[in-house]
Amino acid sequence: MSPETADTPIGWQTNFKQLIAVAEGAPDEALKDAVAPLHPADAAELINLVEHVEIRERIFRALAPDVAPRVLRLVSPLVREQIVQGLPADRLQRMLEHLDSDDAADLIASMPKERAQSILAALPGPVAARIQQLLRYPEDTAGGLMKSEYAAVLEGATVEEAIEIVRILAGTVPDIHNVFVVDRRFHLLGVLPLAGLILAREGQTVDAVMDRQVISATVETDQEEVARLFRKYDLLSLPVTDLRGALLGRITVDDVVDVLEEEANEDFAKLSGLGREEPVFDSPVRTIRRRLPWLGLNLVTTSLSATVIGFFQGTIESTAIAAALMTIVAAQGGNAGVQTLTVMVRGLALGQISASHARPILLKELAVAGGNGVALGLTAGTGAYLLHGQRLLAVVLGLALLVNYLVAALVASVIPLTLRWLRADPAVASSVFVTACTDICGFFSFLGLLTIGLCLFG
Amino acid sequence: MSPETADTPIGWQTNFKQLIAVAEGAPDEALKDAVAPLHPADAAELINLVEHVEIRERIFRALAPDVAPRVLRLVSPLVREQIVQGLPADRLQRMLEHLDSDDAADLIASMPKERAQSILAALPGPVAARIQQLLRYPEDTAGGLMKSEYAAVLEGATVEEAIEIVRILAGTVPDIHNVFVVDRRFHLLGVLPLAGLILAREGQTVDAVMDRQVISATVETDQEEVARLFRKYDLLSLPVTDLRGALLGRITVDDVVDVLEEEANEDFAKLSGLGREEPVFDSPVRTIRRRLPWLGLNLVTTSLSATVIGFFQGTIESTAIAAALMTIVAAQGGNAGVQTLTVMVRGLALGQISASHARPILLKELAVAGGNGVALGLTAGTGAYLLHGQRLLAVVLGLALLVNYLVAALVASVIPLTLRWLRADPAVASSVFVTACTDICGFFSFLGLLTIGLCLFG
Repeated sequence: MSPETADTPIGWQTNFKQLIAVAEGAPDEALKDAVAPLHPADAAELINLVEHVEIRERIFRALAPDVAPRVLRLVSPLVREQIVQGLPADRLQRMLEHLDSDDAADLIASMPKERAQSILAALPGPVAARIQQLLRYPEDTAGGLMKSEYAAVLEGATVEEAIEIVRILAGTVPDIHNVFVVDRRFHLLGVLPLAGLILAREGQTVDAVMDRQVISATVETDQEEVARLFRKYDLLSLPVTDLRGALLGRITVDDVVDVLEEEANEDFAKLSGLGREEPVFDSPVRTIRRRLPWLGLNLVTTSLSATVIGFFQGTIESTAIAAALMTIVAAQGGNAGVQTLTVMVRGLALGQISASHARPILLKELAVAGGNGVALGLTAGTGAYLLHGQRLLAVVLGLALLVNYLVAALVASVIPLTLRWLRADPAVASSVFVTACTDICGFFSFLGLLTIGLCLFG
Repeated sequence: MSPETADTPIGWQTNFKQLIAVAEGAPDEALKDAVAPLHPADAAELINLVEHVEIRERIFRALAPDVAPRVLRLVSPLVREQIVQGLPADRLQRMLEHLDSDDAADLIASMPKERAQSILAALPGPVAARIQQLLRYPEDTAGGLMKSEYAAVLEGATVEEAIEIVRILAGTVPDIHNVFVVDRRFHLLGVLPLAGLILAREGQTVDAVMDRQVISATVETDQEEVARLFRKYDLLSLPVTDLRGALLGRITVDDVVDVLEEEANEDFAKLSGLGREEPVFDSPVRTIRRRLPWLGLNLVTTSLSATVIGFFQGTIESTAIAAALMTIVAAQGGNAGVQTLTVMVRGLALGQISASHARPILLKELAVAGGNGVALGLTAGTGAYLLHGQRLLAVVLGLALLVNYLVAALVASVIPLTLRWLRADPAVASSVFVTACTDICGFFSFLGLLTIGLCLFG
């Protein structure tokens, strides 16, 4: 949790502005003294805040050798890339040896292939092997999240032996929350929280006090499922096994907190047509490259819906106010669709809905759309009648709104469920398709009903 | 973490369908045997899945007395409300005595006022007092999240004494991750992780081995800031003090995992015009009541933007295709605005941006909008020319797109920053205002430029 002891007061806060001034002007020794009492997380925040690469590197060099690797893990990905680029190979190797295996593997994975190879080749055999094993697993699986360091004892061991193992490993294994109990083939039999070790009576075996109801994942478990297990079972750490059930490593709760944030950010990005998560301070060129394809896709879909309007040029020429009212129908459908879509995408992401819920959800959403449609259709229709005094326009506006709310409910429920059923991501591009449908249907229902109305009563 | 030991195999999964069949048909004893081996989190999921209230209550009654309170904590809020309504007062009181103080307070807070009062009056004095103290703090502050149970020792105590405290408290205090070290006025001096207790040498004082760099919150700290502290410092528990620094309780990481999810869901809900988080399986009536006000607000703003179109009836009557093309300009602006807005709202929520970043962010977003505007303005203009063969329409379309992207960048950056600066929530209703601006400006710039163009060259 907290780093080496230091005589800082409780509720201690960091004055980043003052520290940046020191980093920009003061001699090396003064800078070292200034950053020494910082929590690694605060040192990382300081480096993130600095704009100039040289000052960043200067602060990083001023960190104590055992603190620097942890700070490197905590800075933002872009800053980390820059710092790693500037580090000499020997310094980088020492840093990798100090990092937890999962963080070391992530760092190696973010480097250009050739540099990663040469750095790995120079690392001590066991360290390199451990990192290489972790690199085999995709980033978004339990294998990609786990660290290889854990504390385990064989069944039949005594509680004192388990405590001795914790003492021996404490220097090299980070965040020991539990001791795992395994058999000779390393199959997981149970788990012993540290509090359980402290409570046990002298001479008891671990078998007598361990929890046998172990929640575990395999290396292939998806990270969304991993997050769900942590949330559901209030876990501090989750053991990860190979496909045959042998213990390979564990995931700790602090990594899952990051996963939860990452998953939420991804869903946000996809729902709003960003494609994937976007760093706030990325360069305009990179930002354009990321956003342009989605705007381009949207240009295609909005052009499609605009062609629908083209079919009704005659109606618009005779009743120009229709051009104004049709935009209300389209926008309202889009808004209602995004409401439904958000509930669906979050429900699917958090495991609250599955494809088997399609029927009750669709019925509920159609009922909601019907209710909203009657209420707002009457409101908008009455408003239009009072403003423009044309009964036909008012009736058509109200009806078209009702139709478009129903279409919005239908597509915004069915598209994410279908994507999930196809094992695709329900968030990606869903909002583009939903608003395309509600635009097209909004224009079509309003202008279509109006055209029919004009023919019959006009 | 895990409950009482039970002889269930590793990787154990629950067959919910079979269990529901047992709950619907089998005699009481068989149901008790069937639910006995369930993890409380799985029992909660089972109850959430059941549709009929009577079957839900039947399963709940079949749970062991020490498991039932934990299951009650884990079921969904709506289901919990129903179960609590159906519980006799004496059973509910026993349940409250078994719950952690924070969960007991949440349960009391969710009950009708009169029932809450009578239940509190019947509880043992110390339990009621503890719950009443927690009820004073707003739900979304550290005070509202904390539990009053923790393990603490006075400065100068030995490590053995600290271990003895953990042993004594283990039965009643849940999830002890740390022992807090305090002075006689209960001011926090340091924190000792359990692993530190195990590693310490015999006879050492807690002062010699504790971490003095304690990260803490006061009862008034906002829950978003609490989540940020857990994320930033990789905490397992966070001590909470009163405003003078005296220890009152602590927040554990499992509660923060829930907060993170809640905060993300809230941001989603607000960005998509749901107002606040919506349970997936809520009733249509409640859903309509929640969504209707936002759709109504949107109806007002879209009607406003539709009146802009009304000003240009002459232009539309003469060039009906303008009614089609103007919708492209408005939709593209809205899309680009939501992209920017999402980056801003998440950046503000995660503490990556503050009001002081306004200038660089605005410059970046305007540059991005300019780049996208030139690229897509040229594309759309060329497309329109090829389709309709009217040079004026094509030029106006391209220019209006560029203008609307710039407006989108401006309002989508400035609105959330201004809301934050006013200490309001940057997510709430932002998207409604942004799309209202891009709609109005989209229609106005396209139809305005076209009208001018028709006057000059038409």
